[in-house]
Amino acid sequence: MEMADDPVKTNPGHYLENDRVRVLEYRDEAGETTTPHRHPDSVMVTLSAFSRRLSTEDRVFDTALAAGEARWLPAQSHSGENTGDTPTHAIFVELKSPPLSPEASPLGPA
Amino acid sequence: MEMADDPVKTNPGHYLENDRVRVLEYRDEAGETTTPHRHPDSVMVTLSAFSRRLSTEDRVFDTALAAGEARWLPAQSHSGENTGDTPTHAIFVELKSPPLSPEASPLGPA
Repeated sequence: MEMADDPVKTNPGHYLENDRVRVLEYRDEAGETTTPHRHPDSVMVTLSAFSRRLSTEDRVFDTALAAGEARWLPAQSHSGENTGDTPTHAIFVELKSPPLSPEASPLGPA
Repeated sequence: MEMADDPVKTNPGHYLENDRVRVLEYRDEAGETTTPHRHPDSVMVTLSAFSRRLSTEDRVFDTALAAGEARWLPAQSHSGENTGDTPTHAIFVELKSPPLSPEASPLGPA
């Protein structure tokens, strides 16, 4: 199974980006599947109700969400399948690795 | 003008919280106003279309957004007024201050 690291490459929908977050919009139609991709720690906000199956090489997770929900998505790799009969529409707020202030830099070589 | 620091205290709607984010749901009706409150760096996702006036002691900002938009809200204090004729419904993904790894802690007293 080939892994494409970044969901922006496999399933485009780039919304906004700055030093702290990247925000993606995701849409698909009933029955569509994604290629495998990796999410950093993220908050997903659902803009439609949808049913999905998330899969890795050895695990499957089925979920059904209403519109207007917010869920924590810990960093993970998976592929997704729209298992319902309606489109998926969601916003992903991806958290970037915390920037370190100069005062907090390690002293000396690591 | 008295400042209540935390919008959870003034306008409850706590959704989820962990080490990296706190997620709030906000709803109001046409014509309602909030007390002054402070937002940390946040991403706002609109679940309804709405028109709002944001005010500080010396500035006013009017905005109109569609449902399903995601906007960056840099840390700020303000009060808000629903200036449209429909309810506001939005999700705020508040970013917490970056946690520092033990390796990145300052050496010696600050």
